Amino acid sequence: MDVTKINFQKVLEGLDDELEKSCFIAIDTEFTGLNDGGSNKLSSLDTPAERYKKVLNGSSQFLVVQFGLSIFNFDKKIMKYGNKTYNFYIFPHTSMRGLCDKNFMSQASSLSFLANQGFDFNKLIKEGIPFLNFVEEEKFNLNLKNRKSSLNGDSKVPCHELSEIPSDQIGYVNQIVSKVATFLDISNGDEEKSPAILEFQCSSFQNELIFSFVRTRYPNLMFESVKKIGGSFTVTVKKAEFKTELMDRLPLKNHPIEDFLGFSEVIRKITNSGKLVVGHNMLLDLCHILGQFCEPLPEDYKDFKAMTNTFFPRIIDTKVMATTKPFRDLLPNSALGPLLNTLLKAPFRNTEIVTVKDFPSYTDSLKYHEAGYDAFITGRCFIALVNYLEDIQSACNKAMAVHESSLITPFYQKVFMMKVTDIPYMTLSGPDLEPSREHIFYVTFPQNWKLQDIFHLFSVHGTVRVDWASDTSAFVSLHRKENCHFVLSAFNESTLPVGCSVVSYESYINLKHKGVASLQAAEVQESSRKRSASVVHNSSSALPSPKKSRQELENPKLNKTQFAVSTDWD
Amino acid sequence: MDVTKINFQKVLEGLDDELEKSCFIAIDTEFTGLNDGGSNKLSSLDTPAERYKKVLNGSSQFLVVQFGLSIFNFDKKIMKYGNKTYNFYIFPHTSMRGLCDKNFMSQASSLSFLANQGFDFNKLIKEGIPFLNFVEEEKFNLNLKNRKSSLNGDSKVPCHELSEIPSDQIGYVNQIVSKVATFLDISNGDEEKSPAILEFQCSSFQNELIFSFVRTRYPNLMFESVKKIGGSFTVTVKKAEFKTELMDRLPLKNHPIEDFLGFSEVIRKITNSGKLVVGHNMLLDLCHILGQFCEPLPEDYKDFKAMTNTFFPRIIDTKVMATTKPFRDLLPNSALGPLLNTLLKAPFRNTEIVTVKDFPSYTDSLKYHEAGYDAFITGRCFIALVNYLEDIQSACNKAMAVHESSLITPFYQKVFMMKVTDIPYMTLSGPDLEPSREHIFYVTFPQNWKLQDIFHLFSVHGTVRVDWASDTSAFVSLHRKENCHFVLSAFNESTLPVGCSVVSYESYINLKHKGVASLQAAEVQESSRKRSASVVHNSSSALPSPKKSRQELENPKLNKTQFAVSTDWD
Repeated sequence: MDVTKINFQKVLEGLDDELEKSCFIAIDTEFTGLNDGGSNKLSSLDTPAERYKKVLNGSSQFLVVQFGLSIFNFDKKIMKYGNKTYNFYIFPHTSMRGLCDKNFMSQASSLSFLANQGFDFNKLIKEGIPFLNFVEEEKFNLNLKNRKSSLNGDSKVPCHELSEIPSDQIGYVNQIVSKVATFLDISNGDEEKSPAILEFQCSSFQNELIFSFVRTRYPNLMFESVKKIGGSFTVTVKKAEFKTELMDRLPLKNHPIEDFLGFSEVIRKITNSGKLVVGHNMLLDLCHILGQFCEPLPEDYKDFKAMTNTFFPRIIDTKVMATTKPFRDLLPNSALGPLLNTLLKAPFRNTEIVTVKDFPSYTDSLKYHEAGYDAFITGRCFIALVNYLEDIQSACNKAMAVHESSLITPFYQKVFMMKVTDIPYMTLSGPDLEPSREHIFYVTFPQNWKLQDIFHLFSVHGTVRVDWASDTSAFVSLHRKENCHFVLSAFNESTLPVGCSVVSYESYINLKHKGVASLQAAEVQESSRKRSASVVHNSSSALPSPKKSRQELENPKLNKTQFAVSTDWD
Repeated sequence: MDVTKINFQKVLEGLDDELEKSCFIAIDTEFTGLNDGGSNKLSSLDTPAERYKKVLNGSSQFLVVQFGLSIFNFDKKIMKYGNKTYNFYIFPHTSMRGLCDKNFMSQASSLSFLANQGFDFNKLIKEGIPFLNFVEEEKFNLNLKNRKSSLNGDSKVPCHELSEIPSDQIGYVNQIVSKVATFLDISNGDEEKSPAILEFQCSSFQNELIFSFVRTRYPNLMFESVKKIGGSFTVTVKKAEFKTELMDRLPLKNHPIEDFLGFSEVIRKITNSGKLVVGHNMLLDLCHILGQFCEPLPEDYKDFKAMTNTFFPRIIDTKVMATTKPFRDLLPNSALGPLLNTLLKAPFRNTEIVTVKDFPSYTDSLKYHEAGYDAFITGRCFIALVNYLEDIQSACNKAMAVHESSLITPFYQKVFMMKVTDIPYMTLSGPDLEPSREHIFYVTFPQNWKLQDIFHLFSVHGTVRVDWASDTSAFVSLHRKENCHFVLSAFNESTLPVGCSVVSYESYINLKHKGVASLQAAEVQESSRKRSASVVHNSSSALPSPKKSRQELENPKLNKTQFAVSTDWD
C-alpha cells in the first residue's frame, strides 16, 4: 500500500497494533544516491570501522525517499503467513515558513535508475511524508517558540527596527499613535459600525518608524505597508480577527507537535515494538534510517554500534545468511532477485504467504526497487532460508514461525559488508572479526608507477594481487600466504627502488590509528626506522624510470583506472 | 516549446539561424535550490565581491534544471516583434557507464515550489537534456579514450589481475590456451560450422587465472563467467561479433563528441551569436549558467567579471532598469509579475508580439516560474521599458527595435544585487560603485548581547539601524550620517563595555582584505591600536551583564533571530 501524507495519519494510528501482532518485519529503503566516490570508494580491504567512515562521509548527504515496511505474522492454525506491506514516500518539510528547510544531495544516475523503475518523483515532492530527527525536533521546537512569541515581527511587511525616534519625527509618531488608538477604541466599542481598516500615507522612513515604534504597542493589530508609485508608502492597520488568520498559518495551531515528526514516528514505533527487523544488504539502509529519522550519525564506529543496538536491538541481514554456510555453496548469486529465484525451487521450502485485503499482492507482480516490494521479497527470502535451516536439522518443527527458530540466533546484529571477503559482515553486538592480514603489505611508490612495476617489485614472492589505495599507494596480497614472512626481509636499500616503501598491513593500520593524515613515504619512515632491517624505506629525491612492460606501454593509463578491487580467491 | 532530449537535436540544428535573425534574446533558469543559508545568507551591506563569494559558496552545488530561451526579432514593415520561446529541461548524463555521474544539491522548499507550479520532475529525470562544461568535456574525452583502449577490461565479467601463474597451475592454463586457440581456428576457418560458444568449468582461482592470462591474449574474443551452485565457475568464450555489440554500448560509437556536450552547445551558440542577452535579477542565473555549462566558477570576483564578459559580452538586467531612475518611482514592485502588470498600462507602451506557429502563446496563459514563460515575460518587460525611455526623449523613433536604442547603453553589464540599496548592482564592465559607508560601524560584543544593548551603546548618536553579522558582531548605521565623525571619539576604555570593540566600516573591510579569518575582538585590536583615541577596544576577560530592557527580558531570544537585514531608508 502506498503511503503519502494524504493517508499517513490513518496508517500511523493502526501501526502499533499491526506491529504488536507481527512475528517479524522486513524493511528496505530507496535513496537519492549511493556514494560520492573519490576517497570514500569501497575497498576490499576496508575494516568495519573504515567502511563505516566511508558510508558516513560518502553517503549521509543523500536522502531516503522511500521506505518499505513489510509486516509478517504467522497463523499456526492454517500454517500460513499473513502480510501487510506499506510503501512510504518520504520528503522533507517544505511548508514550515523557514523553520526548517533541508538541503540534500542526489546522484544523477540514482534518480534516473529510480525513475526508470517507475518511481514517481512528482508524487514524492508533492505528497511525500515529512520527518524530523530528534535533534531537528528539538531545534524546531525552540524556533517555533521564538516565532510564536514574536508574531508581530513575523508578518510579511518590511520589518525594520530603529533605536529611537529622531526629534523631528516625534510629533508625527505621536499623531499616528493617536490615530491608531482611536481606531482601536472605535473597533472595540461598536463591532457593527467599526471601520475594518485604518489607512494612511507616509514616507519610506516614516514607514520604518511606524513599524518600529507604533506596531510594537499594539500586538493585537496587524500592520501592513505597500510602496506606492512615486515612492511613498500606504500603511494599513487591521483588527485582531485578521491576526488570527496569520496565527492559523503558523504550524502548531491545529497540529500536535507529533505531526511534525512525521515519518520518524514509524521508526520509533518499530523500535518500541521490539520486533525482529530483517533487511537485505542493509548497512546503507540502517545508516540512512538512523541519521535521517533518529539522530545524526556519530563519528565513531563504536558509537554507531551502540546507536544501532539501541534503535534496532534485533536485526538480521539476509545477505549475511545467503553468503554464509550452509547457503554459500547453494546460492550462486546473493542479490535479492536471483536469490528469490533460487529459493523458490528445491531444496528450499516456501511457506504460503497470504496478502491481507487492500494490500498489494506482490506475489504476482515484479516491482523490484520499489522499497515496499523489496522489503516483502526480503521477508519471503528470510522465511525460505530459515525453513531450510530447520529442515536440515533432525528434529525440526514445521509448525513453528521462523522468528521462533533458535537457528537464527547466530545471525543477530550482523550486517553485510560488500566486497570484503575476509570480513564479510560487521558484528554490531560485539567485537568484529579480525582475520590475519599478515600476507598483505602496504606499498608506496612514485606517481608514474604502473601495475607491472608493483608486480615486478614482488616477483620473487609468487602470485600477488594489487588493490590500489591511491595513485601512489597500494595493498599487495600474496597468493601463497605462507610466503609472508620473507617479504619484508627481502627488501633493503639496494633492492627497493628509490621513492618506495613497504610495510606490513599491521604497521599500516597502526600508523592510521595514530591519526597520520597521509600515509605516504615520509610518514612511513617512522615505522621503517623501528624495524630497520625488515621494513625498508627509500625516499631519495631522484626517481628512476621504473621498468615498463610491453603491455602497459601500449596502454599507458589503463591499469590504474581500470583495476577494480576484488576479493574472491579465499 | 518544451525541449527534451527527444527533440533537442532538431532544435539545436536550427538555433544558429534563429539567433542570427534575432534582435535580442531573453533568458531565465530554474534551479534545485537558492542558497544554503548560514554564513552565505545575503546581507544588505554585502559588497559586490562579498556577494559573489556568497553565491559561489552557497549556491553552486544546486543545479539548473530548466532554461528558458525567448528569441525576439523585429519586423520593421509591420512594426511587430516575432517570438519563439524554448523551454529546455536539463538533467546530467546518466547513461555513460561510469564515465561521469554528477552529484548535486537540492533544497526541499525549492523542489516543492517548482512541483506546485506544475514542474514535471519525472519528465526532467527521464527526458532532461544532458550537458558537460568545458572541464568535464576534457575529462570525459580522456576517460573515454582510456575506456575504449581497454575494452577487454570493460566487460561486466569479474576482472582480476594476478602477477603470475603459480607453478601448479601452469599446466591448466596451457590447456585452456590450447582449447581457446583451437576454438578460434575453427571459428576463423569455417564460419558455417564453427561453434558460436566455447564453455568450460573451473574453480574460483582458475577463473581469475583465465581472466588474467588467457583473455589478454585474445582481444577479439569475449570472456564471461558465472558462478555455479556449489561454488565452481562456468567460463564462456564468444566470437568477435559479440564484441562489436559491446562496442556499440560504449558512447562515441554512433555519436559525435558534440552530442555529449548536450545543452552546453546552446550556451556556446548564444555566446557565438553576440546578441544582446536580457535577464531579470540575473546574478544567480549567470553564475549557474557559467558554472554548469561553461567552466567552473573562479574563486576571484575579478575573474568572474572577466569570465562573464567573455561568455556574455552584452547583457542587460531588467531589474536594474526597473529600480533605476526614471523607473524607480513609477514601479512600486520590481518583481517580474507585478512589473509586467504595471508595464501593461499607461504611461507604458507595449509593442505587439506575434508568436510564431507551433510555439506557445504565452500572452494568454499564466505560467510563472516556468523558465520559458519567465524568459518571455522578461523580454516583454524589456521592450516596454525601452519604449518608455524612447518616448520621453524628444526625438524618438518608434520604427526602431529596442536593441537599437542608444538609451540602453548605460545598462549594459550591470547585474542587480538584491537587498543592497547603496550598491544596487554589480558593474561587470568596470569598477563597482563605492558609496561612502562612513556612517556605518562594525561592532563586536559578548554573545549574550541583545539588540537593546547595541541600541544603548549608540544611544547618544541618534537613531541607528543594526544589521547582525553574527551572534557576536553587527553593523550599526547612523540615520544622521553627519554624526559619523563623533562616534569613534566618543568611545574609550571607560565608555565601552568590556568585551566590545567598535571600528569604522573601512577598517573592517581592510582587515577582511588582509585575510583575517574571524573579525572578532582579538583581531580588531590591531586597528584600535593605530587609532588609539578614536577606535576603542576593550577585551578584558570578565564580562559584565549588559543592561537589559524590559522588552527583551520578556522575549529573550527573539531579537537576534528575527531581526532581518534591510535597507530602504536612503
